[in-house]
Amino acid sequence: MSILVVGSVALDSVETPFGKADSVVGGSATFFAAAASLFTPVQVVGVVGNDYPLEQLDFIAERGADLSGIEQKDGPNFCWGGRYHFDLNSRDTLFTELGVFADFHPRIPSNFQDARFVFLGNIDPVLQLDVLNQVCSPELVVCDTMNFWIEGSRDALLKLLERVDILMVNDAEARQLADEPNLLKAARWIQARGPRYVVIKKGEHGAILYGDDWIFFAPGYPLESVFDPTGAGDSFAGGFFGYMAGAQSLGERELKQAMMYGSATGSFAVEAFSVDRFRSLTPREVAERVQEFRDMTEFEHRLEGGA
Amino acid sequence: MSILVVGSVALDSVETPFGKADSVVGGSATFFAAAASLFTPVQVVGVVGNDYPLEQLDFIAERGADLSGIEQKDGPNFCWGGRYHFDLNSRDTLFTELGVFADFHPRIPSNFQDARFVFLGNIDPVLQLDVLNQVCSPELVVCDTMNFWIEGSRDALLKLLERVDILMVNDAEARQLADEPNLLKAARWIQARGPRYVVIKKGEHGAILYGDDWIFFAPGYPLESVFDPTGAGDSFAGGFFGYMAGAQSLGERELKQAMMYGSATGSFAVEAFSVDRFRSLTPREVAERVQEFRDMTEFEHRLEGGA
Repeated sequence: MSILVVGSVALDSVETPFGKADSVVGGSATFFAAAASLFTPVQVVGVVGNDYPLEQLDFIAERGADLSGIEQKDGPNFCWGGRYHFDLNSRDTLFTELGVFADFHPRIPSNFQDARFVFLGNIDPVLQLDVLNQVCSPELVVCDTMNFWIEGSRDALLKLLERVDILMVNDAEARQLADEPNLLKAARWIQARGPRYVVIKKGEHGAILYGDDWIFFAPGYPLESVFDPTGAGDSFAGGFFGYMAGAQSLGERELKQAMMYGSATGSFAVEAFSVDRFRSLTPREVAERVQEFRDMTEFEHRLEGGA
Repeated sequence: MSILVVGSVALDSVETPFGKADSVVGGSATFFAAAASLFTPVQVVGVVGNDYPLEQLDFIAERGADLSGIEQKDGPNFCWGGRYHFDLNSRDTLFTELGVFADFHPRIPSNFQDARFVFLGNIDPVLQLDVLNQVCSPELVVCDTMNFWIEGSRDALLKLLERVDILMVNDAEARQLADEPNLLKAARWIQARGPRYVVIKKGEHGAILYGDDWIFFAPGYPLESVFDPTGAGDSFAGGFFGYMAGAQSLGERELKQAMMYGSATGSFAVEAFSVDRFRSLTPREVAERVQEFRDMTEFEHRLEGGA
């Protein structure tokens, strides 16, 4: 089953303690598509400038992704520059140049409008709503957002949440959105506004899925070297949603597995700059890390006298 | 099997967004003993001033803990005061008055000297070494430390590590000790200096056990309200070590279970000020949370074509 993804297709300039990359392909739609296309077909909608090296995304198309929804416009591409601190858990944004992204109004091609699975990458909630209005009958909508929209487009975001099945944000964003420091309470607050599920990403600490009456923890994969954290969250989303769509079932069992596929996929993203690790990555390698997660989380326990 | 614990027996004054407690019983040995005594006998060595309300610890003695190694001296007790920030993940120390703790030189009573299990609470590594020298043939030594000693008593700490089986520290301490931001590398660095196992506590994010060639994740229990985080780490240690000692086996299976008992026990500690939650807590309640952890971490996965 295909996933429609709408988001940014950026050029990233990144400095980490281990090196520097200038104007490499990035953006939420790019990382999501690179990750999800390991497991399921993807339809990408976005905008790029006439300076964008679209051929850098050929490997995603070769896996069956449809990139025909990426519009190329006259003007410079969206550029982001950031520098990571020594421990890689925090970063400074050095510059953001919107370029053609400033006037991005997603137009969903007619052959994408019957998408059942939709991933709304981190863009203005007004545009995310607009995307949903162009899709006939979405079955599962997964949505990301960030502090900028939580602060500046709160009303649109709350309206959007009513139509979202899974909100996928990091812990700081969940706390900010709900104005509540306790993560469990923040997740419940968000769920009360629409999304049946909330996935809270916590970087190296893994991620938590809040369901109706159950909770599931996915650890972060223990890596000896994290090279570049850029795109880890979108790659998590791609692995998560890609696995779900591929499994063609949306039950608790698949959601838990998808959390592990998300965490494993995200862990590969940070092993190289840009989407480079995805160029050679295979679904088998991801599945092997998921299998490793089993050994890292499984324990025997029997409650004496029954539950 | 009994555990010998040496550590602080403090009077804590704590402010949280939810209330205030003045001069309540606390300290690393106190929290550890309150937690571990749920599962196994404990022998406590420490020092208190003549102003210490020792009767507040009667409930621990009633569970079979031997408090006869707590020496009472003329002078004021060790007092610590702290204030937690709104999200409870950080705190300011308001004051530290050492009192009789300043001259603490642990003397292990002769009937404690054959202890096979030893927990070295967070005190000067010179004193921790001194404790080990007074114990005939310890079989399992678990040790805690903090930034103050990592900075100020590094040589003694490194000497101590050679005789420690499990070092149990938080993530910031592990990074500081190894001078290495990557947690996995930091754990391996510590293991190369003696401890066969390293347990890294990460507060609400749970804890990680680094073994020889395996790693295990314990999530933090999702609580709707954290009342007072003081003592969570020592309560984790008490639940972990208490369970191990009670299980009378030191294999990988028991270590993994002990991680879950540690996390569950620590989650109860934060539900009330001081050791108050432990006054009524039962081993059954802890085991029920461990059972809940199974549902929160268990997932099905089969690697196609075998591992």
